[in-house]
Amino acid sequence: GLRRLVDPLHEADLGALIEALDHDDRTRLLALLGSDFDFAALTEVDDTIRKELLESIPNANIAEGVRELDVDDAVYILEDLDEDDKAEVLEQLPPPERVALQRSLDYPEDSAGRRMQTEFIAVPPFWTVGQTIDYMRETEDLPDTFYEIFVVDPTFQLIGTVPLDRLLRTKRPAKISDIMSEDQHLIQATDDQEKAARLFQRYNLVSCAVVDESKRLVGVMMIDDIVDVIEEEADEDLKALGGVKGDEELSDTVWHTVRSRFPWLFANLVTAIVAANVIHLFEGSIQQMVVLAVLMPIVASIGGNAGTQTMTVTVRALATQELRRSNTWRIIRREVAVGVCNGIGFAIILGSVAVLWFGIRDLGFVIGLAMLTVLSVAALGGILIPLTLHRLGVDPAVSSGPFVTTTTDVIGFFAFLGIATLWFGLS
Amino acid sequence: GLRRLVDPLHEADLGALIEALDHDDRTRLLALLGSDFDFAALTEVDDTIRKELLESIPNANIAEGVRELDVDDAVYILEDLDEDDKAEVLEQLPPPERVALQRSLDYPEDSAGRRMQTEFIAVPPFWTVGQTIDYMRETEDLPDTFYEIFVVDPTFQLIGTVPLDRLLRTKRPAKISDIMSEDQHLIQATDDQEKAARLFQRYNLVSCAVVDESKRLVGVMMIDDIVDVIEEEADEDLKALGGVKGDEELSDTVWHTVRSRFPWLFANLVTAIVAANVIHLFEGSIQQMVVLAVLMPIVASIGGNAGTQTMTVTVRALATQELRRSNTWRIIRREVAVGVCNGIGFAIILGSVAVLWFGIRDLGFVIGLAMLTVLSVAALGGILIPLTLHRLGVDPAVSSGPFVTTTTDVIGFFAFLGIATLWFGLS
Ligand SMILES: [Mg+2]
Ligand SMILES: [Mg+2]
Ligand SMILES: [Mg+2]
Ligand SMILES: [Mg+2]
Ligand SMILES: [Mg+2]
Ligand SMILES: [Mg+2]
Ligand SMILES: [Mg+2]
Ligand SMILES: [Mg+2]
Ligand SMILES: [Mg+2]
Ligand SMILES: [Mg+2]
Ligand SMILES: [Mg+2]
Ligand SMILES: [Mg+2]
Ligand SMILES: [Mg+2]
Repeated sequence: GLRRLVDPLHEADLGALIEALDHDDRTRLLALLGSDFDFAALTEVDDTIRKELLESIPNANIAEGVRELDVDDAVYILEDLDEDDKAEVLEQLPPPERVALQRSLDYPEDSAGRRMQTEFIAVPPFWTVGQTIDYMRETEDLPDTFYEIFVVDPTFQLIGTVPLDRLLRTKRPAKISDIMSEDQHLIQATDDQEKAARLFQRYNLVSCAVVDESKRLVGVMMIDDIVDVIEEEADEDLKALGGVKGDEELSDTVWHTVRSRFPWLFANLVTAIVAANVIHLFEGSIQQMVVLAVLMPIVASIGGNAGTQTMTVTVRALATQELRRSNTWRIIRREVAVGVCNGIGFAIILGSVAVLWFGIRDLGFVIGLAMLTVLSVAALGGILIPLTLHRLGVDPAVSSGPFVTTTTDVIGFFAFLGIATLWFGLS
Repeated sequence: GLRRLVDPLHEADLGALIEALDHDDRTRLLALLGSDFDFAALTEVDDTIRKELLESIPNANIAEGVRELDVDDAVYILEDLDEDDKAEVLEQLPPPERVALQRSLDYPEDSAGRRMQTEFIAVPPFWTVGQTIDYMRETEDLPDTFYEIFVVDPTFQLIGTVPLDRLLRTKRPAKISDIMSEDQHLIQATDDQEKAARLFQRYNLVSCAVVDESKRLVGVMMIDDIVDVIEEEADEDLKALGGVKGDEELSDTVWHTVRSRFPWLFANLVTAIVAANVIHLFEGSIQQMVVLAVLMPIVASIGGNAGTQTMTVTVRALATQELRRSNTWRIIRREVAVGVCNGIGFAIILGSVAVLWFGIRDLGFVIGLAMLTVLSVAALGGILIPLTLHRLGVDPAVSSGPFVTTTTDVIGFFAFLGIATLWFGLS
C-alpha cells in the first residue's frame, strides 16, 4: 500500500513529504520503505533533516542506497557523515564506485569537484555522427541525463563539445570534428562552485566540462546542480546580511536556532556598548539639555540605515563580481556623493522637524550638521568596510553589518552630541 | 578592424565590454558596428544602459536588430521602450514576427508568457524515432537551441515530452508514444516567472512547456532564462531587505540613486521620530537619572537586530515557499521561543554589564527585564509583520523593515524607560 503510494513520486515530492512529517514518522517511513527508498530524495531535504535521517539508517543500507545515485548526489549525502561512518560506508562499496566517490570527496568543500557528475560521454574527433549515435544506442551504461557530448584526444584532453540538438540535426556521415564547438568553457575541479555558477550564468550553459590539474576531463557539472548553487549562494548572502547563518533552516530546533543566532547579536551588543560609551562622555550635556537624548537616536538610526543601503549594494556587487578594480573608484565616489546629497536633504528635513518640535532655532543647525556628517561617513563606511573585508579574504556579507553599525552609531552620537556641546557651550 | 575584434565575442562578453565603456564610447561603438551589432548583447547589460542605448538607436535599426533574436530576447528589449517607440518598431516587422512579439507583450509583466520562446519542436505521438530524427535533419528553421521535443495531439494539447538524450539512445523504429514521458510539468503563460522558476528548480528541468488558457502549447521556457529569473528575484529580495530598490544598478547616476534611496530613509525617519516621542515622554526620568540615556540605545539596538534576524528568515521562507500554512504555527512558536531564550541570555549579560559599569544593582534587573521584553516582542514582530504584509499582497521584503524597527524601537525605549521609572520611582 505505502510502497504503491510513494513509488510514483518524484524525488523532490518524496523529499517534501519527508519534510512535512515529524521526526518519528520520518524514520518510520524510511524503515517501512526499506530498500525501496529512493536516496535521491535525501538530496532534496533540509540539511538537518538529512543528517537526522542518516543517523537512523544503518551504514550498510546507506552504502546500498548511494550506489544507485549519480556521484554528485552520493557525495552530497556522504559529505555530511562523520569520518567513521563515511569510511565504513565507502568500505562496503565495490572498488570502482568507491574510487570515484573518494576522488570527489578529496576535492575541497564547495568545489566543482564535489558537485560534478563523473559519468559523461566522450568520443574521438574522427568519429562520424552516425557512429556516435550507434554507440549511444548500443551502450547500456550511459549517464541518466546528458545535454552534450565531449570530444577528447587520446590523453583525454577536451578538444570540443557537441550539443545534442546539433547532433540530431546533422546527417549521419558528417564528422564530429566538423560540427563540434571549439570555444571551451572549462571548470577546474578545485574551483569554487560559485565560480562555476557564474560561468554557467554568463554563457547560458546547461552542462560544462570539469578538468583536473593536468587538464584531463574528469567530470561534468549539470545546470540543475548549478541552479541549487545559485540559490544557495544568494540565500547565504541574504541571510548573512540579516545576521542569520547560511545553514539555518526552518526545520532547526529552538535550541539550535538560539545558539546559531546568538553570536551575531552578541557582536551587535559589543557594538552598542561602544556607542553607549560615546553617550557616556556627554552625560553632562544631556543633563543640561535633555532634548538631546530624545533626538540622538534619530541621527544614529538614519545613519545606520543609509550605511546599510550602501553596504547591501556593495556586498551584492562583490558577490556578482560586478564590482571590479576597474570601477571601484567610480562607485566609491558615487556612494559618497549620494551620501552627501541625502545628507543635505535629511539635514533640512530633520533640522526643520527639530525646530518645529522644540522651538529652539539653533537645534536645527546642530542636528542638520550632524546629519550631514553621519550620512557622508555612513556612505564611506558602507562601501569601504565590505571592500576591505573582501580584500582581507573575509566574507563581507557575514561581517560587514556590525562594523558599519558601530561606525554610524559612534559617529552619529559623537557628531550630534559633540556639535551640540560646542554650539550651546554645554559642559 | 573593430568588426574583426568584436565579431567573435560571445554576446555576454560584448555586453560586458559595452558596460565597461563610458556613455559616449558606447554609442560610438554601436554606431560603428551598425547592422553588425548583435542585439543579443543588449539582454546582457544593466537596464539603465540598455535604455540609454536604445534611445540612441533609430527605431528602424531596432526593428532590424530584434528580428534576429529569439522572441523572449526581443520581448526583453522591447518591453523597456515607451509605447510610441514600441508601436513604431513593431510596425516595421513582418506580420508573423509582429504577431508573435505582440502576443508575448500582451502577457503581464514578469509573466512566463513574456519570457517564453515561441519556437519549439512538436511532433505527433505516432511518429517513430527515425521519422523524428529525419524531420530534424531536413527542416531548416529549427529553434537555435532545444533540449526536448514536445508530443502534441491535433489540437496542440501537450501529451508528452521526449528529452533529446532519450531520442538518441533509442533505435529508429521505436514509436514516440512509447518513449515519451507523460508526467507533465506545465506553466501557464500568465503565471509569474518566479512560480515557473520554482517548478524548474524543484523538478530539475532544463526546459518546460508553456500553455495558454485553453491548454494549447504556445511556447517553451528555457533554463538559462530561468537562471536569470532566480538570480533577479533573489537579488530583488536581498536588496529590498537592505532598503534598496530591486532595479538599482551600479551604472545608475548619483541623482538617480539619491532619489531611489530617499523614500526608504524617509520611512525610517518617520519610524525614528515615532520612537523619539516615546523618549520624550520620559524626559523627566532621564534628567533625574542620565545613565538611562546611555543604556537605552543598547536595548533598542539589540531588539532591532533580533527582529531583523527573524524577519530575514521569514521573508526568505515566504519567497521560497517553504513557509506554508501547514507549518506557520510551528515556526511562530519556534521564533518566540528563540526570542525568549536569547532574551534570558542577553538579560543576564547586559544586566551584569550595567551593574559592573555603573555600580547600581537594581539597574541590572531593570535592563534585564526590558531586554527580555524587547527580544520576545522582536521575535513576534519579526515573523507576524512579514506574514501579515504577505497575506495583504504587499511584498514583505520591501516593507517589513521599517515596521519591525518601529516596533522594536518603541517597545525597547518604552520597556526600559517605563520599567526604570516605576522601579526607581522617577517622575
Ligand atoms: Mg538532485
Ligand atoms: Mg529545504
Ligand atoms: Mg560559497
Ligand atoms: Mg544568462
Ligand atoms: Mg546532479
Ligand atoms: Mg558567497
Ligand atoms: Mg540570453
Ligand atoms: Mg548587470
Ligand atoms: Mg526588464
Ligand atoms: Mg517578481
Ligand atoms: Mg533541484
Ligand atoms: Mg532565452
Ligand atoms: Mg519576489
